[in-house]
Amino acid sequence: MGAHAFDIDTEVSAAGLDGEFTAELTGRWDGTNGAVNGGYMLAICARALGRLMPFPDPVVISGFFLRPGTVGPAAVRTSLLRCGRTMAFGEASLDCGGKQVVSATAAFAELGSREEPEYVNRTPPQLPPPADCVALPAADCVALPAGSLDRASIHERVEFRFAELPGSLRGQPSGHPASAFWTRFADGRDADLLALPLLADASVPSVVGATSATVQLTVHLRARPAPGWLACRAVTRFVSGGYHEEDVEIWDSAGTLVAQSRQLAQILP
Amino acid sequence: MGAHAFDIDTEVSAAGLDGEFTAELTGRWDGTNGAVNGGYMLAICARALGRLMPFPDPVVISGFFLRPGTVGPAAVRTSLLRCGRTMAFGEASLDCGGKQVVSATAAFAELGSREEPEYVNRTPPQLPPPADCVALPAADCVALPAGSLDRASIHERVEFRFAELPGSLRGQPSGHPASAFWTRFADGRDADLLALPLLADASVPSVVGATSATVQLTVHLRARPAPGWLACRAVTRFVSGGYHEEDVEIWDSAGTLVAQSRQLAQILP
Repeated sequence: MGAHAFDIDTEVSAAGLDGEFTAELTGRWDGTNGAVNGGYMLAICARALGRLMPFPDPVVISGFFLRPGTVGPAAVRTSLLRCGRTMAFGEASLDCGGKQVVSATAAFAELGSREEPEYVNRTPPQLPPPADCVALPAADCVALPAGSLDRASIHERVEFRFAELPGSLRGQPSGHPASAFWTRFADGRDADLLALPLLADASVPSVVGATSATVQLTVHLRARPAPGWLACRAVTRFVSGGYHEEDVEIWDSAGTLVAQSRQLAQILP
Repeated sequence: MGAHAFDIDTEVSAAGLDGEFTAELTGRWDGTNGAVNGGYMLAICARALGRLMPFPDPVVISGFFLRPGTVGPAAVRTSLLRCGRTMAFGEASLDCGGKQVVSATAAFAELGSREEPEYVNRTPPQLPPPADCVALPAADCVALPAGSLDRASIHERVEFRFAELPGSLRGQPSGHPASAFWTRFADGRDADLLALPLLADASVPSVVGATSATVQLTVHLRARPAPGWLACRAVTRFVSGGYHEEDVEIWDSAGTLVAQSRQLAQILP
Protein backbone atom coordinates (compact mmCIF):
# COMPACT_ATOMS: atom_id res chain seq x y z
CA MET A 1 0.00 0.00 0.00
CA GLY A 2 2.90 2.34 0.65
CA ALA A 3 3.71 2.36 -3.06
CA HIS A 4 0.76 4.55 -4.01
CA ALA A 5 0.95 8.32 -4.06
CA PHE A 6 -2.19 8.81 -1.99
CA ASP A 7 -0.96 6.52 0.80
CA ILE A 8 2.50 8.06 0.87
CA ASP A 9 1.22 11.62 0.82
CA THR A 10 -1.41 11.15 3.54
CA GLU A 11 0.84 9.25 5.92
CA VAL A 12 0.64 10.39 9.53
CA SER A 13 3.14 9.54 12.28
CA ALA A 14 2.37 9.69 15.96
CA ALA A 15 4.22 12.62 17.54
CA GLY A 16 4.99 13.33 21.17
CA LEU A 17 1.63 13.78 22.81
CA ASP A 18 -1.49 11.65 22.68
CA GLY A 19 -3.45 12.31 19.54
CA GLU A 20 -0.73 14.39 17.89
CA PHE A 21 0.63 13.42 14.50
CA THR A 22 3.03 14.78 11.94
CA ALA A 23 2.36 14.73 8.21
CA GLU A 24 4.02 16.13 5.09
CA LEU A 25 1.91 18.12 2.65
CA THR A 26 3.18 17.57 -0.86
CA GLY A 27 2.73 19.72 -3.95
CA ARG A 28 1.31 16.74 -5.82
CA TRP A 29 -2.39 17.51 -5.20
CA ASP A 30 -2.66 21.15 -6.21
CA GLY A 31 -5.83 22.28 -7.96
CA THR A 32 -6.26 24.61 -10.92
CA ASN A 33 -5.97 27.53 -8.49
CA GLY A 34 -2.46 26.35 -7.58
CA ALA A 35 -3.46 25.64 -3.97
CA VAL A 36 -3.12 22.42 -2.00
CA ASN A 37 -6.41 20.54 -2.50
CA GLY A 38 -8.73 20.81 0.49
CA GLY A 39 -9.97 17.24 0.10
CA TYR A 40 -6.37 16.05 0.28
CA MET A 41 -5.88 17.83 3.62
CA LEU A 42 -9.21 16.49 4.83
CA ALA A 43 -8.09 12.95 3.94
CA ILE A 44 -5.01 13.47 6.13
CA CYS A 45 -7.27 14.59 8.99
CA ALA A 46 -9.50 11.53 8.47
CA ARG A 47 -6.50 9.25 8.47
CA ALA A 48 -5.19 10.73 11.73
CA LEU A 49 -8.67 10.51 13.29
CA GLY A 50 -8.87 6.88 12.20
CA ARG A 51 -5.91 6.16 14.45
CA LEU A 52 -7.89 6.99 17.58
CA MET A 53 -11.39 5.96 16.57
CA PRO A 54 -12.82 2.70 17.93
CA PHE A 55 -14.84 2.23 14.70
CA PRO A 56 -13.32 1.64 11.28
CA ASP A 57 -15.36 3.81 8.92
CA PRO A 58 -15.74 7.57 8.61
CA VAL A 59 -19.43 8.22 7.89
CA VAL A 60 -19.36 12.00 7.76
CA ILE A 61 -16.53 14.49 7.82
CA SER A 62 -16.68 18.27 7.75
CA GLY A 63 -13.69 20.51 7.08
CA PHE A 64 -13.35 24.28 7.32
CA PHE A 65 -10.44 25.77 5.39
CA LEU A 66 -9.04 28.69 7.36
CA ARG A 67 -6.14 29.59 5.08
CA PRO A 68 -4.25 27.99 2.18
CA GLY A 69 -2.15 24.94 3.04
CA THR A 70 1.55 25.10 2.35
CA VAL A 71 3.81 22.34 1.08
CA GLY A 72 6.02 20.94 3.83
CA PRO A 73 5.67 19.57 7.36
CA ALA A 74 2.27 19.71 8.98
CA ALA A 75 1.00 18.88 12.45
CA VAL A 76 -2.33 17.18 13.07
CA ARG A 77 -3.84 17.47 16.54
CA THR A 78 -6.77 15.14 17.14
CA SER A 79 -9.14 14.47 19.97
CA LEU A 80 -11.94 12.04 20.62
CA LEU A 81 -15.08 14.01 21.50
CA ARG A 82 -17.39 11.13 22.31
CA CYS A 83 -17.41 7.38 21.99
CA GLY A 84 -20.92 5.96 21.86
CA ARG A 85 -22.10 2.38 21.41
CA THR A 86 -22.28 2.50 17.61
CA MET A 87 -20.66 5.83 16.72
CA ALA A 88 -17.71 7.94 17.78
CA PHE A 89 -16.94 11.60 17.13
CA GLY A 90 -13.60 13.34 16.88
CA GLU A 91 -12.02 16.56 15.76
CA ALA A 92 -8.73 17.35 14.07
CA SER A 93 -6.73 20.49 13.46
CA LEU A 94 -4.19 20.53 10.64
CA ASP A 95 -1.51 23.17 11.11
CA CYS A 96 1.20 24.37 8.72
CA GLY A 97 4.06 26.45 10.10
CA GLY A 98 2.29 26.69 13.45
CA LYS A 99 -0.89 28.14 11.92
CA GLN A 100 -4.17 26.29 11.73
CA VAL A 101 -5.19 25.54 8.15
CA VAL A 102 -8.02 23.01 8.55
CA SER A 103 -10.57 22.46 11.30
CA ALA A 104 -12.17 19.05 10.78
CA THR A 105 -14.81 17.11 12.65
CA ALA A 106 -15.92 13.57 11.86
CA ALA A 107 -18.16 10.73 12.95
CA PHE A 108 -16.93 7.16 12.63
CA ALA A 109 -19.00 3.97 12.80
CA GLU A 110 -19.07 0.56 11.16
CA LEU A 111 -20.81 0.78 7.80
CA GLY A 112 -23.23 -2.06 7.13
CA SER A 113 -22.70 -4.79 4.62
CA ARG A 114 -23.60 -3.93 1.04
CA GLU A 115 -27.21 -4.95 1.36
CA GLU A 116 -29.82 -3.53 -0.98
CA PRO A 117 -30.47 0.14 -0.32
CA GLU A 118 -33.91 0.80 1.09
CA TYR A 119 -34.63 3.74 -1.17
CA VAL A 120 -32.64 5.43 -3.92
CA ASN A 121 -34.30 7.92 -6.24
CA ARG A 122 -31.31 8.40 -8.53
CA THR A 123 -29.37 6.30 -10.97
CA PRO A 124 -25.61 6.47 -11.40
CA PRO A 125 -24.44 8.85 -14.15
CA GLN A 126 -24.89 7.22 -17.57
CA LEU A 127 -21.46 7.37 -19.20
CA PRO A 128 -19.84 5.46 -22.07
CA PRO A 129 -17.09 3.05 -20.98
CA PRO A 130 -14.03 4.97 -19.74
CA ALA A 131 -12.01 3.81 -22.77
CA ASP A 132 -14.46 5.64 -25.05
CA CYS A 133 -14.33 8.86 -23.04
CA VAL A 134 -12.25 12.03 -23.30
CA ALA A 135 -9.40 12.29 -20.80
CA LEU A 136 -8.03 15.46 -19.23
CA PRO A 137 -5.93 17.37 -20.03
CA ALA A 138 -7.29 17.58 -23.56
CA ALA A 139 -5.85 19.69 -26.35
CA ASP A 140 -9.08 21.60 -26.86
CA CYS A 141 -9.37 22.78 -23.25
CA VAL A 142 -9.56 26.51 -23.67
CA ALA A 143 -11.79 27.96 -21.01
CA LEU A 144 -9.72 27.63 -17.88
CA PRO A 145 -7.28 30.44 -17.16
CA ALA A 146 -4.12 29.78 -19.19
CA GLY A 147 -1.69 27.47 -17.45
CA SER A 148 -4.12 26.44 -14.75
CA LEU A 149 -4.36 22.82 -15.89
CA ASP A 150 -0.54 22.63 -16.01
CA ARG A 151 -0.47 24.02 -12.48
CA ALA A 152 -3.00 21.41 -11.36
CA SER A 153 -0.57 18.68 -10.30
CA ILE A 154 -3.58 16.76 -8.99
CA HIS A 155 -4.33 15.82 -12.60
CA GLU A 156 -1.15 13.71 -12.69
CA ARG A 157 -2.53 11.78 -9.70
CA VAL A 158 -6.26 11.65 -10.43
CA GLU A 159 -7.74 10.75 -13.83
CA PHE A 160 -10.94 12.19 -15.26
CA ARG A 161 -12.91 10.88 -18.25
CA PHE A 162 -15.84 12.75 -19.75
CA ALA A 163 -18.39 11.49 -22.28
CA GLU A 164 -17.48 14.70 -24.05
CA LEU A 165 -15.44 17.59 -22.81
CA PRO A 166 -17.83 19.90 -20.88
CA GLY A 167 -18.73 23.02 -22.85
CA SER A 168 -17.26 25.07 -20.04
CA LEU A 169 -13.83 23.57 -20.81
CA ARG A 170 -14.20 24.20 -24.54
CA GLY A 171 -14.98 27.88 -24.15
CA GLN A 172 -18.68 27.17 -24.81
CA PRO A 173 -20.27 27.20 -21.36
CA SER A 174 -23.78 25.73 -21.43
CA GLY A 175 -24.91 28.01 -18.64
CA HIS A 176 -25.45 24.99 -16.41
CA PRO A 177 -22.43 24.25 -14.21
CA ALA A 178 -22.98 20.51 -14.06
CA SER A 179 -20.91 17.58 -15.27
CA ALA A 180 -20.64 13.81 -15.11
CA PHE A 181 -17.35 11.96 -15.37
CA TRP A 182 -15.35 8.92 -14.41
CA THR A 183 -12.51 9.26 -11.94
CA ARG A 184 -9.82 7.07 -10.36
CA PHE A 185 -6.27 7.31 -9.05
CA ALA A 186 -3.79 7.36 -11.95
CA ASP A 187 -1.47 4.84 -10.28
CA GLY A 188 -4.07 2.10 -10.03
CA ARG A 189 -4.83 2.45 -6.32
CA ASP A 190 -8.47 1.64 -5.72
CA ALA A 191 -10.45 4.19 -3.78
CA ASP A 192 -11.43 3.47 -0.20
CA LEU A 193 -13.44 5.58 2.23
CA LEU A 194 -10.39 7.65 3.17
CA ALA A 195 -9.79 8.57 -0.46
CA LEU A 196 -13.34 9.76 -1.16
CA PRO A 197 -13.03 13.24 0.44
CA LEU A 198 -10.09 13.93 -1.86
CA LEU A 199 -11.86 12.56 -4.94
CA ALA A 200 -15.00 14.53 -4.10
CA ASP A 201 -12.97 17.74 -4.03
CA ALA A 202 -10.63 16.91 -6.91
CA SER A 203 -13.02 17.40 -9.80
CA VAL A 204 -12.50 20.21 -12.25
CA PRO A 205 -14.43 23.18 -10.88
CA SER A 206 -17.88 23.28 -12.40
CA VAL A 207 -18.06 27.05 -12.10
CA VAL A 208 -15.52 28.21 -14.61
CA GLY A 209 -14.48 31.74 -15.45
CA ALA A 210 -13.94 32.37 -11.75
CA THR A 211 -11.42 31.09 -9.25
CA SER A 212 -12.89 30.10 -5.96
CA ALA A 213 -11.62 28.81 -2.63
CA THR A 214 -13.38 26.16 -0.58
CA VAL A 215 -14.65 27.58 2.72
CA GLN A 216 -16.23 24.37 3.99
CA LEU A 217 -16.64 20.83 2.68
CA THR A 218 -18.94 18.13 4.08
CA VAL A 219 -18.61 14.56 2.84
CA HIS A 220 -21.06 11.77 3.67
CA LEU A 221 -19.49 8.33 3.25
CA ARG A 222 -22.30 5.91 2.51
CA ALA A 223 -20.65 2.62 1.50
CA ARG A 224 -17.18 1.16 1.01
CA PRO A 225 -16.40 1.53 -2.69
CA ALA A 226 -15.98 -1.54 -4.93
CA PRO A 227 -12.72 -1.59 -6.94
CA GLY A 228 -12.52 0.19 -10.28
CA TRP A 229 -13.61 3.44 -11.87
CA LEU A 230 -15.94 5.76 -9.95
CA ALA A 231 -18.77 7.59 -11.72
CA CYS A 232 -19.34 11.15 -10.51
CA ARG A 233 -21.89 13.87 -10.90
CA ALA A 234 -21.06 17.47 -9.95
CA VAL A 235 -23.52 20.34 -9.94
CA THR A 236 -23.73 23.95 -8.78
CA ARG A 237 -27.19 25.49 -8.53
CA PHE A 238 -26.61 28.79 -6.77
CA VAL A 239 -23.92 31.34 -7.57
CA SER A 240 -24.76 34.49 -5.64
CA GLY A 241 -23.32 37.11 -3.32
CA GLY A 242 -19.76 35.97 -4.01
CA TYR A 243 -20.31 32.31 -3.05
CA HIS A 244 -21.38 29.10 -4.70
CA GLU A 245 -22.08 25.60 -3.51
CA GLU A 246 -20.91 22.45 -5.30
CA ASP A 247 -22.56 19.07 -4.82
CA VAL A 248 -20.79 15.87 -5.86
CA GLU A 249 -22.10 12.31 -5.92
CA ILE A 250 -19.66 9.42 -6.26
CA TRP A 251 -20.93 6.02 -7.42
CA ASP A 252 -18.76 2.89 -7.49
CA SER A 253 -18.37 0.30 -10.24
CA ALA A 254 -21.12 -1.81 -8.67
CA GLY A 255 -23.61 1.06 -9.06
CA THR A 256 -23.71 2.00 -5.36
CA LEU A 257 -23.65 5.58 -4.14
CA VAL A 258 -20.52 5.70 -1.99
CA ALA A 259 -20.19 9.41 -1.20
CA GLN A 260 -22.16 12.60 -1.36
CA SER A 261 -20.37 15.89 -0.80
CA ARG A 262 -21.28 19.55 -0.66
CA GLN A 263 -18.95 22.49 -0.41
CA LEU A 264 -19.39 26.21 0.00
CA ALA A 265 -16.79 28.12 -2.00
CA GLN A 266 -15.97 31.81 -2.01
CA ILE A 267 -15.40 33.37 -5.41
CA LEU A 268 -12.06 35.16 -5.40
CA PRO A 269 -11.74 38.63 -6.91
CA MET B 1 -36.97 41.24 20.26
CA GLY B 2 -36.93 39.65 23.71
CA ALA B 3 -40.64 38.95 23.46
CA HIS B 4 -40.30 36.15 20.92
CA ALA B 5 -39.83 32.52 21.88
CA PHE B 6 -36.83 32.01 19.61
CA ASP B 7 -34.96 34.98 21.07
CA ILE B 8 -35.76 34.04 24.66
CA ASP B 9 -34.86 30.38 24.16
CA THR B 10 -31.55 30.99 22.37
CA GLU B 11 -30.32 33.68 24.75
CA VAL B 12 -26.71 33.29 25.84
CA SER B 13 -25.06 35.06 28.78
CA ALA B 14 -21.34 35.55 29.14
CA ALA B 15 -19.98 33.33 31.90
CA GLY B 16 -16.72 33.53 33.79
CA LEU B 17 -14.06 32.92 31.21
CA ASP B 18 -13.51 34.46 27.80
CA GLY B 19 -15.74 32.87 25.21
CA GLU B 20 -17.83 30.93 27.74
CA PHE B 21 -21.58 31.38 27.85
CA THR B 22 -24.53 29.91 29.67
CA ALA B 23 -27.84 29.08 27.99
CA GLU B 24 -31.05 27.34 28.94
CA LEU B 25 -32.38 24.58 26.69
CA THR B 26 -36.15 24.58 26.77
CA GLY B 27 -38.57 21.79 25.91
CA ARG B 28 -40.33 24.09 23.44
CA TRP B 29 -38.46 22.91 20.32
CA ASP B 30 -38.77 19.14 20.53
CA GLY B 31 -39.25 17.20 17.29
CA THR B 32 -41.53 14.27 16.54
CA ASN B 33 -38.90 12.00 18.10
CA GLY B 34 -39.34 13.87 21.42
CA ALA B 35 -35.74 15.15 21.33
CA VAL B 36 -34.49 18.71 21.54
CA ASN B 37 -34.23 19.92 17.94
CA GLY B 38 -30.65 19.93 16.65
CA GLY B 39 -31.15 23.10 14.65
CA TYR B 40 -32.30 24.85 17.83
CA MET B 41 -29.08 23.88 19.60
CA LEU B 42 -27.09 24.92 16.53
CA ALA B 43 -28.80 28.32 16.60
CA ILE B 44 -27.65 28.75 20.22
CA CYS B 45 -24.09 27.91 19.14
CA ALA B 46 -24.34 30.42 16.27
CA ARG B 47 -25.63 33.09 18.61
CA ALA B 48 -22.76 32.52 21.07
CA LEU B 49 -20.25 32.54 18.21
CA GLY B 50 -21.74 35.78 16.94
CA ARG B 51 -20.67 37.40 20.20
CA LEU B 52 -16.99 36.94 19.40
CA MET B 53 -16.97 37.20 15.62
CA PRO B 54 -15.74 40.41 14.00
CA PHE B 55 -18.21 39.90 11.10
CA PRO B 56 -21.99 40.00 11.44
CA ASP B 57 -23.23 37.10 9.31
CA PRO B 58 -22.84 33.34 9.66
CA VAL B 59 -22.25 32.01 6.11
CA VAL B 60 -21.81 28.34 6.93
CA ILE B 61 -22.28 26.37 10.13
CA SER B 62 -21.72 22.67 10.74
CA GLY B 63 -22.94 20.83 13.80
CA PHE B 64 -22.26 17.28 14.97
CA PHE B 65 -24.77 15.88 17.45
CA LEU B 66 -22.92 13.67 19.92
CA ARG B 67 -25.84 12.78 22.20
CA PRO B 68 -29.39 14.00 22.81
CA GLY B 69 -29.70 17.44 24.38
CA THR B 70 -31.50 17.72 27.71
CA VAL B 71 -33.81 20.48 28.89
CA GLY B 72 -32.12 22.71 31.44
CA PRO B 73 -28.94 24.73 31.82
CA ALA B 74 -26.32 24.40 29.12
CA ALA B 75 -22.80 25.73 28.76
CA VAL B 76 -21.43 26.99 25.45
CA ARG B 77 -17.67 27.22 25.09
CA THR B 78 -16.53 29.14 22.02
CA SER B 79 -13.21 30.01 20.47
CA LEU B 80 -12.10 32.08 17.52
CA LEU B 81 -10.00 29.89 15.22
CA ARG B 82 -8.95 32.48 12.69
CA CYS B 83 -9.80 36.03 11.81
CA GLY B 84 -9.04 36.83 8.18
CA ARG B 85 -9.60 40.02 6.22
CA THR B 86 -13.09 39.09 4.99
CA MET B 87 -13.96 35.96 6.95
CA ALA B 88 -13.55 34.58 10.46
CA PHE B 89 -13.87 31.02 11.76
CA GLY B 90 -14.88 29.79 15.17
CA GLU B 91 -15.94 26.69 17.02
CA ALA B 92 -18.45 26.08 19.78
CA SER B 93 -19.18 23.23 22.13
CA LEU B 94 -22.61 22.99 23.72
CA ASP B 95 -22.61 20.93 26.91
CA CYS B 96 -25.53 19.67 29.02
CA GLY B 97 -24.82 18.39 32.51
CA GLY B 98 -21.09 18.58 31.84
CA LYS B 99 -21.31 16.38 28.74
CA GLN B 100 -20.72 17.64 25.22
CA VAL B 101 -23.87 17.48 23.12
CA VAL B 102 -22.98 19.57 20.05
CA SER B 103 -19.69 20.28 18.32
CA ALA B 104 -20.19 23.23 15.97
CA THR B 105 -17.89 25.10 13.61
CA ALA B 106 -18.82 28.19 11.63
CA ALA B 107 -17.52 30.81 9.25
CA PHE B 108 -18.76 34.38 9.58
CA ALA B 109 -18.43 37.19 7.02
CA GLU B 110 -20.45 40.13 5.79
CA LEU B 111 -23.01 38.96 3.27
CA GLY B 112 -23.31 41.20 0.23
CA SER B 113 -26.24 43.40 -0.55
CA ARG B 114 -29.15 41.68 -2.22
CA GLU B 115 -27.90 42.22 -5.72
CA GLU B 116 -29.04 39.95 -8.53
CA PRO B 117 -27.68 36.44 -8.21
CA GLU B 118 -25.16 35.57 -10.87
CA TYR B 119 -26.62 32.15 -11.58
CA VAL B 120 -29.57 30.25 -10.17
CA ASN B 121 -30.85 27.13 -11.87
CA ARG B 122 -33.86 26.66 -9.61
CA THR B 123 -37.06 28.48 -8.89
CA PRO B 124 -38.65 28.80 -5.45
CA PRO B 125 -41.23 26.10 -4.65
CA GLN B 126 -44.52 26.88 -6.37
CA LEU B 127 -47.11 26.94 -3.59
CA PRO B 128 -50.61 28.43 -3.27
CA PRO B 129 -50.80 31.40 -0.88
CA PRO B 130 -50.31 30.28 2.74
CA ALA B 131 -53.97 31.08 3.54
CA ASP B 132 -55.06 28.47 0.97
CA CYS B 133 -52.73 25.78 2.32
CA VAL B 134 -53.16 22.97 4.87
CA ALA B 135 -51.67 23.67 8.29
CA LEU B 136 -50.14 21.15 10.66
CA PRO B 137 -51.27 19.43 12.79
CA ALA B 138 -54.13 18.30 10.57
CA ALA B 139 -56.85 15.90 11.56
CA ASP B 140 -56.03 13.43 8.81
CA CYS B 141 -52.35 13.01 9.80
CA VAL B 142 -52.14 9.28 10.28
CA ALA B 143 -48.71 8.11 9.22
CA LEU B 144 -46.49 9.42 11.97
CA PRO B 145 -46.15 7.22 15.05
CA ALA B 146 -49.16 7.89 17.29
CA GLY B 147 -48.66 10.87 19.56
CA SER B 148 -45.52 12.06 17.85
CA LEU B 149 -47.06 15.27 16.54
CA ASP B 150 -48.41 16.02 20.03
CA ARG B 151 -44.93 15.39 21.40
CA ALA B 152 -43.47 17.76 18.81
CA SER B 153 -43.65 20.98 20.81
CA ILE B 154 -41.76 22.66 17.98
CA HIS B 155 -45.04 22.72 16.06
CA GLU B 156 -46.43 25.20 18.58
CA ARG B 157 -43.51 27.48 17.74
CA VAL B 158 -43.05 26.90 14.01
CA GLU B 159 -45.89 26.84 11.48
CA PHE B 160 -46.01 24.68 8.37
CA ARG B 161 -48.39 25.02 5.44
CA PHE B 162 -48.60 22.46 2.64
CA ALA B 163 -50.36 22.76 -0.73
CA GLU B 164 -51.81 19.43 0.29
CA LEU B 165 -50.83 17.19 3.15
CA PRO B 166 -47.94 15.01 1.92
CA GLY B 167 -49.02 11.43 1.18
CA SER B 168 -46.51 10.26 3.78
CA LEU B 169 -48.55 12.06 6.46
CA ARG B 170 -51.85 10.63 5.18
CA GLY B 171 -50.68 7.02 5.32
CA GLN B 172 -50.23 7.03 1.53
CA PRO B 173 -46.50 7.48 0.99
CA SER B 174 -45.69 8.38 -2.61
CA GLY B 175 -42.38 6.55 -2.43
CA HIS B 176 -40.59 9.87 -2.93
CA PRO B 177 -39.61 11.49 0.37
CA ALA B 178 -39.84 15.07 -0.86
CA SER B 179 -42.05 17.94 0.13
CA ALA B 180 -42.57 21.67 -0.33
CA PHE B 181 -44.12 23.90 2.29
CA TRP B 182 -44.32 27.35 3.81
CA THR B 183 -42.83 27.95 7.24
CA ARG B 184 -42.54 30.80 9.76
CA PHE B 185 -42.41 31.38 13.49
CA ALA B 186 -45.88 31.10 15.01
CA ASP B 187 -45.42 34.23 17.14
CA GLY B 188 -44.78 36.51 14.18
CA ARG B 189 -41.02 36.86 14.62
CA ASP B 190 -39.44 37.23 11.20
CA ALA B 191 -36.61 34.86 10.42
CA ASP B 192 -33.06 36.14 10.35
CA LEU B 193 -29.84 34.31 9.59
CA LEU B 194 -29.61 32.96 13.15
CA ALA B 195 -33.06 31.40 12.88
CA LEU B 196 -32.41 29.57 9.60
CA PRO B 197 -30.49 26.59 11.05
CA LEU B 198 -33.47 25.89 13.30
CA LEU B 199 -36.01 26.31 10.50
CA ALA B 200 -33.93 24.10 8.20
CA ASP B 201 -34.01 21.32 10.77
CA ALA B 202 -37.57 21.88 11.99
CA SER B 203 -39.44 20.45 9.03
CA VAL B 204 -41.47 17.30 9.42
CA PRO B 205 -39.12 14.41 8.61
CA SER B 206 -39.46 13.51 4.95
CA VAL B 207 -38.57 9.89 5.63
CA VAL B 208 -41.54 8.63 7.56
CA GLY B 209 -42.14 5.21 9.04
CA ALA B 210 -38.74 5.45 10.69
CA THR B 211 -37.40 7.57 13.50
CA SER B 212 -33.99 8.98 12.85
CA ALA B 213 -31.46 11.11 14.70
CA THR B 214 -29.37 13.83 13.10
CA VAL B 215 -25.68 12.95 13.13
CA GLN B 216 -24.48 16.06 11.34
CA LEU B 217 -26.11 19.17 9.86
CA THR B 218 -24.48 21.71 7.55
CA VAL B 219 -26.29 24.96 6.77
CA HIS B 220 -25.16 27.45 4.15
CA LEU B 221 -26.56 30.93 4.79
CA ARG B 222 -26.74 32.70 1.45
CA ALA B 223 -28.71 35.91 2.03
CA ARG B 224 -30.49 37.77 4.83
CA PRO B 225 -34.14 36.76 4.59
CA ALA B 226 -36.81 39.30 3.73
CA PRO B 227 -39.73 39.45 6.21
CA GLY B 228 -42.65 37.06 5.82
CA TRP B 229 -43.31 33.42 5.02
CA LEU B 230 -40.43 31.22 3.86
CA ALA B 231 -40.92 28.66 1.09
CA CYS B 232 -39.06 25.40 1.64
CA ARG B 233 -38.23 22.30 -0.32
CA ALA B 234 -37.04 19.13 1.48
CA VAL B 235 -35.83 15.99 -0.23
CA THR B 236 -34.14 12.72 0.64
CA ARG B 237 -32.58 10.76 -2.21
CA PHE B 238 -30.62 8.00 -0.49
CA VAL B 239 -31.83 5.78 2.33
CA SER B 240 -29.28 3.02 2.74
CA GLY B 241 -27.17 1.18 5.28
CA GLY B 242 -29.10 2.66 8.18
CA TYR B 243 -28.60 6.32 7.18
CA HIS B 244 -30.28 8.92 5.06
CA GLU B 245 -29.47 12.45 4.02
CA GLU B 246 -31.98 15.29 3.94
CA ASP B 247 -31.54 18.42 1.85
CA VAL B 248 -33.55 21.56 2.55
CA GLU B 249 -33.72 24.80 0.57
CA ILE B 250 -35.26 27.89 2.17
CA TRP B 251 -36.44 30.75 -0.05
CA ASP B 252 -37.67 34.07 1.31
CA SER B 253 -40.76 36.08 0.37
CA ALA B 254 -38.74 38.02 -2.19
CA GLY B 255 -37.89 34.79 -4.04
CA THR B 256 -34.26 34.64 -2.90
CA LEU B 257 -32.59 31.44 -1.76
CA VAL B 258 -31.54 32.25 1.80
CA ALA B 259 -30.34 28.88 3.09
CA GLN B 260 -29.40 25.44 1.86
CA SER B 261 -28.95 22.65 4.38
CA ARG B 262 -27.98 19.01 4.32
CA GLN B 263 -28.03 16.57 7.18
CA LEU B 264 -26.95 12.99 7.65
CA ALA B 265 -29.34 11.12 9.92
CA GLN B 266 -29.06 7.68 11.44
CA ILE B 267 -32.21 5.56 11.34
CA LEU B 268 -32.97 4.35 14.85
CA PRO B 269 -33.98 0.73 15.45
